[in-house]
Amino acid sequence: MDPIRRCVTQLSRLPGIGEKTAQRLTWWLLRAPDDLVRELAESLAELKAAVKECSQCHTIAASDPCPICADPRRDPAMICVVERPQDISAVERSGEYHGLYHVLHGAISPLDGVGPEQLRLRSLIQRAASVTEVIVATDPDVEGDATALYIARALKPAGVKVSRLAHGVAVGTEIEYADRVSLMRALENRRAL
Amino acid sequence: MDPIRRCVTQLSRLPGIGEKTAQRLTWWLLRAPDDLVRELAESLAELKAAVKECSQCHTIAASDPCPICADPRRDPAMICVVERPQDISAVERSGEYHGLYHVLHGAISPLDGVGPEQLRLRSLIQRAASVTEVIVATDPDVEGDATALYIARALKPAGVKVSRLAHGVAVGTEIEYADRVSLMRALENRRAL
Repeated sequence: MDPIRRCVTQLSRLPGIGEKTAQRLTWWLLRAPDDLVRELAESLAELKAAVKECSQCHTIAASDPCPICADPRRDPAMICVVERPQDISAVERSGEYHGLYHVLHGAISPLDGVGPEQLRLRSLIQRAASVTEVIVATDPDVEGDATALYIARALKPAGVKVSRLAHGVAVGTEIEYADRVSLMRALENRRAL
Repeated sequence: MDPIRRCVTQLSRLPGIGEKTAQRLTWWLLRAPDDLVRELAESLAELKAAVKECSQCHTIAASDPCPICADPRRDPAMICVVERPQDISAVERSGEYHGLYHVLHGAISPLDGVGPEQLRLRSLIQRAASVTEVIVATDPDVEGDATALYIARALKPAGVKVSRLAHGVAVGTEIEYADRVSLMRALENRRAL
């Protein structure tokens, strides 16, 4: 196949990149410095080979244990449970959390055929036996709620404290434009001043 | 550098792809089949090495002469002049043109320091000596107009017919939403029914 055509085809397999965008990117790459294109190709080629699943928290990282699990400054008495590895970056950006993580790789969703067995829940229950608090940071949707409830019930016998991220109006949102469900949650979770 | 971080950085160097999109693409690639990621990386790695500039029409292609210049069924008496290699695909899609092409690799733009010497104009004048018609398909903007005028003047001594693509209201456009300049051109170029 023609190398230009081939590049367009491959790029258009990416999510959110249609035929037109793939063409635009390909012609941009043809005019870009050789180094830039080579570095991009190399970073893609090495991406999958260079990463593994952390045997403790199940995130995807270059090392096992991952940098966070291996960091002695992290508080080993707290576990923050997230659905996806990329959720860790979001929590880390808050700068407020210094414990460990646990990546479920999904959320309970009977309609999609995802039950507790398909998630990394068994190892969470094992890890939770030696911590004081588990913070559930699953998405604020039906699947995330069901998963949080399942975790709370599963960890009850161990006597570990289970909490969930507060939901409410996002900071910076004008009340006028806040969505109905966030406002409902914000009212439920109102705090005395 | 962390391979995930590295891939995000490389992808965000592409035009129109910001940090957030690069992260989304990287995590999508981490979950995608190995084959898909390998084929994408290979097609990028081979892109620049596998293409060259056609010595006749100056397009970018896998062979020199390019497939169109090498095709004996194309009419060698006509040359369609375009600014960029990707413009050839657009003209080909019309299915109305069966001659050869000439890629200028730009348009005359004094403000950007692009004069006739920076474009593939000298070889166009040489090629035009042996054809009957040159169709100028530069963009309908100031630079494209200036370039078309320059070509018409430069080819006058050779006595070759020089024409330009008709401009007007794009097919499928509602008159209500047509832009002012296209409507002006459409009125100028109106045809008797």
